[in-house]
Amino acid sequence: MKRTLVSIAAKTEASQFNLKNYLEERTAAVNRALNEFLPRASTKPTTIHRAMRYSLFAGGKRMRPAVCLAAAEACGGSENAAMPLACAVECIHTYSLIHDDLPAMDNDDYRRGKLTNHKVFGEGIAVLAGDALLTQAFEIAAQARGWPRYSHREIILEIARASGSLQLIAGQVADVEGEGKKTSAQQLKYIHERKTSALLCCSVRLGGMSANCTPAQLKALTDFGYNVGLAFQIIDDILDVTQTSEQLGKTAGKDTATQKATYPSIAGLEKSRKIAKQLTDRAFASLRIFQGKAVALEALAEYLLKRDR
Amino acid sequence: MKRTLVSIAAKTEASQFNLKNYLEERTAAVNRALNEFLPRASTKPTTIHRAMRYSLFAGGKRMRPAVCLAAAEACGGSENAAMPLACAVECIHTYSLIHDDLPAMDNDDYRRGKLTNHKVFGEGIAVLAGDALLTQAFEIAAQARGWPRYSHREIILEIARASGSLQLIAGQVADVEGEGKKTSAQQLKYIHERKTSALLCCSVRLGGMSANCTPAQLKALTDFGYNVGLAFQIIDDILDVTQTSEQLGKTAGKDTATQKATYPSIAGLEKSRKIAKQLTDRAFASLRIFQGKAVALEALAEYLLKRDR
Repeated sequence: MKRTLVSIAAKTEASQFNLKNYLEERTAAVNRALNEFLPRASTKPTTIHRAMRYSLFAGGKRMRPAVCLAAAEACGGSENAAMPLACAVECIHTYSLIHDDLPAMDNDDYRRGKLTNHKVFGEGIAVLAGDALLTQAFEIAAQARGWPRYSHREIILEIARASGSLQLIAGQVADVEGEGKKTSAQQLKYIHERKTSALLCCSVRLGGMSANCTPAQLKALTDFGYNVGLAFQIIDDILDVTQTSEQLGKTAGKDTATQKATYPSIAGLEKSRKIAKQLTDRAFASLRIFQGKAVALEALAEYLLKRDR
Repeated sequence: MKRTLVSIAAKTEASQFNLKNYLEERTAAVNRALNEFLPRASTKPTTIHRAMRYSLFAGGKRMRPAVCLAAAEACGGSENAAMPLACAVECIHTYSLIHDDLPAMDNDDYRRGKLTNHKVFGEGIAVLAGDALLTQAFEIAAQARGWPRYSHREIILEIARASGSLQLIAGQVADVEGEGKKTSAQQLKYIHERKTSALLCCSVRLGGMSANCTPAQLKALTDFGYNVGLAFQIIDDILDVTQTSEQLGKTAGKDTATQKATYPSIAGLEKSRKIAKQLTDRAFASLRIFQGKAVALEALAEYLLKRDR
């Protein structure tokens, strides 16, 4: 099948890979696509669409879309084919943040330096805005044009399972239930696997699937996503201890204040850093199958390990 | 294509249609299927699965699954092909009730004579149980075996649109925002169309689609679902005024207490009853195309008009 779109892989095969430019370009493209996929802020009832857009465009790092697009690229796919899935995952991620921030859960007033959804729109609308973004994710995925090797059915199942009561929601439940209780390292890994790894892994897999990846490539992307997802959450835990609220754009030291178990509180800071590094190394190793074409995924994994916010 | 399953239409073509038996049989079948589709209550994290099941098996009338199965039947389809969609819609309906009952929205302590989800499991888990049921709905639909004329993609889009920010959620937003304000008859219709008609219409359409209905049949089912949905909500408004909490299994007189606009408050009781009757007549008229095979749908529409709880 002749592609009418230039493979996005070509853009990044240059010997000098500039992650900053790459992220800026991809973030801009994702923002444009999300803006197209979401109902206008002026669409009735305007409150819900303003609330959905408020959190969706509140300055998120677009890490899940970025790894989704980068995975598509590693498999020789096009940005167009991956974009609806990158946006669907971002809608799911944003809904989970809106609901996690609610007073009945983490009770956070700030997120990314801005007031949380319920502080601006009230709790009722915040619940509904989360619901609407979750529903929108499935609409965006179902609306997508389609992919030769993987069906809409497989894609929707992938998203539903990663977001469901055995993965993303299970992680949040275990997190909420664990507050103030003694948590084992094993239990903490269970939470992190579900709360962060599941959706990150799903993003990477969806990118590969949009690019008609082979089963071996999908396996490699799964390992990559799992390990990077765990490393990502450990770094989050470390930053909560070491950074100020201003640096993070959200309340720092929150985990300690709520006696929430974290890697630093269980394993100590140095050992946590070492584990994050090991996980990132494992993630790198799984990319060998792409023979140098996964340069963007590699750069993203390294960036996630070394980030300071 | 030869069907291995006996058409369920055959069962109901008898001259003596017994709605009570029909509803009991279908409710039992839906409950068995939901029990199969949902993770066990013992699956970790058990809290979320107990919470999901608590509301899903709290004695709901299964009206949406019933009209879905009856629509499949009118089109000569099988219960097996329609069942996953009937269950998906019931998961969506249950999630919307759990979230609507939250203190930040309608703040209801009782539903179907039982404590609401947040009164039993706490607000945080109730939010997550709703999220999980919404996600589960898409998983159930995506997992279904498939239908010759309509793709998983079309089915998922149908569910996502009926449940999204322009329909089901739009209705709830307008409802929340309208409390205590003067509402016009037009605005009330807008709310009812979205809050009740959209998902009821979707249920009927999905039933038809599962039975490979023709475009003309789908149009007839759409008209039927829209009109029955509106009539259903008007009757709900009437019952809120005329019945006791004990009879309803939920707080009666709630709409008056919260100054929520209803058909009786705007048009008066008698005129409201007349409108519900007219809508039901219109629903009946749209069933002519089925030439007597929509006997279950007819009986259900009449039952919904005449019910007392």
